[in-house]
Amino acid sequence: MPTMAAHDPLDLPPEEIRRAGHSAIEAMAEYLGSVRNRSVYPRVASRDIREQLDDALPQDGVPFEELLHVFRDVLVPNSRHNAHPRMFGYVQAPGIAVAALADLLASTLNANLTAWRSAPAAVELERLTIDWIKQMIGSDPGAAGLFVSGGSMANFAGLAAARRAKAPGDFARAGAQSLGSSMRIYASQETHHSIAKAATLLGLGSDNVREVRVDERFRIRLDDLEGKIAEDLRAGHLPFCVVANAGTVNTGACDPIAEVADVARRFNLWMHVDASYGGFARLAPSARGLFDGIDQADSISLDPHKWLYLPVDCGCVLYRDPQTARAAFAHDAEYTRVISHEADEAFAFWDYGPELSRRFRALKVWMALRAVGVRGFAAAIEKDLACARHFEALVRANDDFEMLAPVELSIFCFRHVPAALRDATDTQLDAWNERLLVELQRDGSSYLSNARIGGRFSLRGCVMNYRTTPRDMEVLLADLRRVASALPVQ
Amino acid sequence: MPTMAAHDPLDLPPEEIRRAGHSAIEAMAEYLGSVRNRSVYPRVASRDIREQLDDALPQDGVPFEELLHVFRDVLVPNSRHNAHPRMFGYVQAPGIAVAALADLLASTLNANLTAWRSAPAAVELERLTIDWIKQMIGSDPGAAGLFVSGGSMANFAGLAAARRAKAPGDFARAGAQSLGSSMRIYASQETHHSIAKAATLLGLGSDNVREVRVDERFRIRLDDLEGKIAEDLRAGHLPFCVVANAGTVNTGACDPIAEVADVARRFNLWMHVDASYGGFARLAPSARGLFDGIDQADSISLDPHKWLYLPVDCGCVLYRDPQTARAAFAHDAEYTRVISHEADEAFAFWDYGPELSRRFRALKVWMALRAVGVRGFAAAIEKDLACARHFEALVRANDDFEMLAPVELSIFCFRHVPAALRDATDTQLDAWNERLLVELQRDGSSYLSNARIGGRFSLRGCVMNYRTTPRDMEVLLADLRRVASALPVQ
Repeated sequence: MPTMAAHDPLDLPPEEIRRAGHSAIEAMAEYLGSVRNRSVYPRVASRDIREQLDDALPQDGVPFEELLHVFRDVLVPNSRHNAHPRMFGYVQAPGIAVAALADLLASTLNANLTAWRSAPAAVELERLTIDWIKQMIGSDPGAAGLFVSGGSMANFAGLAAARRAKAPGDFARAGAQSLGSSMRIYASQETHHSIAKAATLLGLGSDNVREVRVDERFRIRLDDLEGKIAEDLRAGHLPFCVVANAGTVNTGACDPIAEVADVARRFNLWMHVDASYGGFARLAPSARGLFDGIDQADSISLDPHKWLYLPVDCGCVLYRDPQTARAAFAHDAEYTRVISHEADEAFAFWDYGPELSRRFRALKVWMALRAVGVRGFAAAIEKDLACARHFEALVRANDDFEMLAPVELSIFCFRHVPAALRDATDTQLDAWNERLLVELQRDGSSYLSNARIGGRFSLRGCVMNYRTTPRDMEVLLADLRRVASALPVQ
Repeated sequence: MPTMAAHDPLDLPPEEIRRAGHSAIEAMAEYLGSVRNRSVYPRVASRDIREQLDDALPQDGVPFEELLHVFRDVLVPNSRHNAHPRMFGYVQAPGIAVAALADLLASTLNANLTAWRSAPAAVELERLTIDWIKQMIGSDPGAAGLFVSGGSMANFAGLAAARRAKAPGDFARAGAQSLGSSMRIYASQETHHSIAKAATLLGLGSDNVREVRVDERFRIRLDDLEGKIAEDLRAGHLPFCVVANAGTVNTGACDPIAEVADVARRFNLWMHVDASYGGFARLAPSARGLFDGIDQADSISLDPHKWLYLPVDCGCVLYRDPQTARAAFAHDAEYTRVISHEADEAFAFWDYGPELSRRFRALKVWMALRAVGVRGFAAAIEKDLACARHFEALVRANDDFEMLAPVELSIFCFRHVPAALRDATDTQLDAWNERLLVELQRDGSSYLSNARIGGRFSLRGCVMNYRTTPRDMEVLLADLRRVASALPVQ
């Protein structure tokens, strides 16, 4: 028999919203209050989770409490805890409680930030918040931009604008197959794969992303960059874009942005800076100099859901000349025609990015910046950098671990070299460290991911959490030793 | 002087989360409890809002209550209220309180749904919810898909998969400029502009989107479709994709999907169904037949943030053959290499869409479906359809308004023909109705948007709100008459 709900579950009265809401807040407070004490990672298989979820298409409604029960007792225990102070895997932010409340309010108001006229206050707040980000990042004061779902979409948008700005003839109408030559992008070997993915989606072809060699600190080599551009020009290709990394995903390397900008200017290339991981580290005095030249970027990818610690999703793309972006994204349609004519009120985000309906992502960025302040973020990021440097110092002071790359920002790449494997080959050490990584993840006290550095398997961590302390770095090393000691050397 | 926060605003203790959270829930309950009594649209200019927002980059944190004050007293009064029962503009959902709570919990857990290993429980829940959507929509049982930010991104993803599946040679590596011919898409004149936008971004060129003529009900004409394909084949182009609309944005027209599928099969085209607006209306018995043939779609765009009433953002793309999508989106990188080897646990969403970091959008879909049940959604959608039909009947029974298109789903297109303009030209009626629209929006009791129908300016509404009743349709008509009577005929 169908359960009859006392209220229409689509349109709960205020007292029911309060009741359900207070239960949800209680679950939130409990979770965030206890996350430090959990295993970072669950020991679980796909089937175990599926068995705990009712898979029948729901015909009738159930009370909110039943859903909250699934959240508490199925979802939480079977999740990786990104808020945990020793979650060092990938480039993962913990989230911020205030920002989660902002997401609640954003979904309550349900503003849809297509254009000013559809969400006046929300659009003003997004534009204001983008202005703040420009100041924090040091971009060109004339730049404009918008929030997108993440770094992949920001890189895609930057490259789309670059291609549109540099494509000859009537590319937008006739399409890429009308071009006489291959448009080519230059990016270091260490560049995030979302650049190659964007190139493929744009129809540029992955072969037209030239991988430029890196120096001993994994930064783009300018001689190789210039050499490849010259080589392509001789072959009749059309160089149009260079990507500079402000924090690579493997090691946190920062390409010399000002020097890359010089090359870009000389060869009439668009310079896209992928600052998805590193950009906000410019707030930390000890890292600030790494971002010199970012004001010369034609486009910049940023991820507030990385080093502003925000919950996913929130990426950001900035364009130095917003009109080039407009050329790439604007389309006319009657239902997008703006009837009112004041410039500010005729503004439409859909002209500058791939989305039409847009979530009020700005609210969580604005609330977090106002609740914490730039000084608070600067201190937390500086603390993250200090944690990574502390870890590097610990490794260098011991002989059972070795660094595989220098610490540039908050990423640390290293491997375990136990006494029994001191004379082992790289292949043996690769296998050992891969086993160690899997065991560490299973153990659950600390979580690392991996990278390949100079062909070698590397344990890799990234500190991006205001909860992480130098003491956690020591616990990580102790966890690795403890797990390794229980693992037979094969 | 900087304000010193009593607690670290980045890492609030549970009691502070409870305090701030309960205030946020109170703001939510107040807002949703009073939204019916508000003007749908604010009378406000850009400058007025900016003056109420502190535009200085925040150096130090402020208490959450100050931010909530801005939400209540600046953002809410200066917003269009999408939850209002007479918000008929565009194709806009109201949001659901339970889904807003789901967004709170999603941002608290902050799962990042890149791949199974990074968010085991959340990925399982997304896959389960996608299975439910397949059942609701009637897609091919072997289909797979994922949530994306909206219909624009779903259309982009579907077309990217189509292009990859049908492009000759080594397109993905060599790029579109290596193709000997133009790849061509076919879509009716009434198709959403995101299809042309996607084609441009993919590098296909907007000229290669062929606009197919429509019949008197604004459905794609099969004879013109076949004619254009044949013409292009003779000219040496490469037809590769046809778009069928399951609910156009102007009038809600549904192309005959099964017949379009026949043409697609005959010419070896990919059939993409854009069901962003209409898809979930298949749950309503009176509309079900319009979606016959959708099981033959190669890809389908859906928008749970439309007719599942969810807050933005939540779009969805389904692929009949997931491997073709994988070919379009998958890229190898060491940090995306999956070390564990069970098939379910090696699953990665990044192989099937443009995003890497992905918000836990599935939680609000799952919670809403469980809280309301499919029967509840079916009844609400059927009620929306009935409201639009009721409005059409009212217009047809009166001589001061006329319908400009038949009601197919919940969109109604019409215009005002006051006695004084009974013998006016279309140009005069266009001008009159445009002025009437602007005045109606300023009046604030009801909100419509506009469309161009057969060259004429049309008032256009869409019912997509469980709060809207047949009585609201009568109020809309009364509002229009009241506003018109105060407007001088020029």
